[in-house]
Amino acid sequence: MSEARWLSPAQLDAWKRLVAVVELLPGILDSQLQRDAGLTHFEYFTLAMLSESEGRRLRMTALASRTNATLPRLSHVVSRLEDRGYVKRVPSESDRRATNVKLTDAGWAKVQQTAPGHVEKVRASVIDALDADDVDGLNRVMAKVLERVDPEGRFGLSTGPM
Amino acid sequence: MSEARWLSPAQLDAWKRLVAVVELLPGILDSQLQRDAGLTHFEYFTLAMLSESEGRRLRMTALASRTNATLPRLSHVVSRLEDRGYVKRVPSESDRRATNVKLTDAGWAKVQQTAPGHVEKVRASVIDALDADDVDGLNRVMAKVLERVDPEGRFGLSTGPM
Repeated sequence: MSEARWLSPAQLDAWKRLVAVVELLPGILDSQLQRDAGLTHFEYFTLAMLSESEGRRLRMTALASRTNATLPRLSHVVSRLEDRGYVKRVPSESDRRATNVKLTDAGWAKVQQTAPGHVEKVRASVIDALDADDVDGLNRVMAKVLERVDPEGRFGLSTGPM
Repeated sequence: MSEARWLSPAQLDAWKRLVAVVELLPGILDSQLQRDAGLTHFEYFTLAMLSESEGRRLRMTALASRTNATLPRLSHVVSRLEDRGYVKRVPSESDRRATNVKLTDAGWAKVQQTAPGHVEKVRASVIDALDADDVDGLNRVMAKVLERVDPEGRFGLSTGPM
């Protein structure tokens, strides 16, 4: 083993701050969504991904990629959302062996209802603290990090505009 | 309710990328540390915070702040680390009602042994993807975000050099 390549002081500062944000942000998003909509951030994110998709539906495998979930975890969450009437499992029309998840009208209404309060929390916690240069910087840095931590581009967010 | 203040396209891109990193990074850090050292990221971070403290010890309450843990969660983790001989609970010398957590020699050795492999993973996942401007940008943006998500400065990372 060669000598460890320790971080420079600036790199260490940036890393520790990123880790602190990574630790704190999920709890903040979860509390707001639980309190206001009875949803975890993961459940909301799942509904939101469906709401943005063509025909408000996605294959289970595609939805798993979009939400960075394993299929068993996603399947569990989809069942809970199905029990509450927000989504429905339907067989794919193009491939009978595949399952699609479709947002119901109630699920669509839930996203519409929940989004404004959630975006306010996102603004208050992160976005409103940043000027236009900061937003560009965050975008550039996170795209570079995603090339490392999501090399297969499962989130589809690594490079370029989305 | 007034009209929702939706995010601009650039803000939405930056937000989605940040959320993806927040989702992905903990699993990456946990897998490396579990595989190489049998530690969760939280356990490693707890040991690392103690290793950087004066006398390699901290009050439970201070350690809870540093690691963004509730006291019950921290207490549970400290017990597991104590069972493995890495830390010891000792009464505070200045305040008998308070408990300190002290890194043992075995805990210090564990941090020394684990740090080089961990820093390599941190470099590979994040830091080596960034040039000096990116590091400055990440530092500035995360400091601004921490002023919002950690207004009491429990991590002590909100502003200025650390």
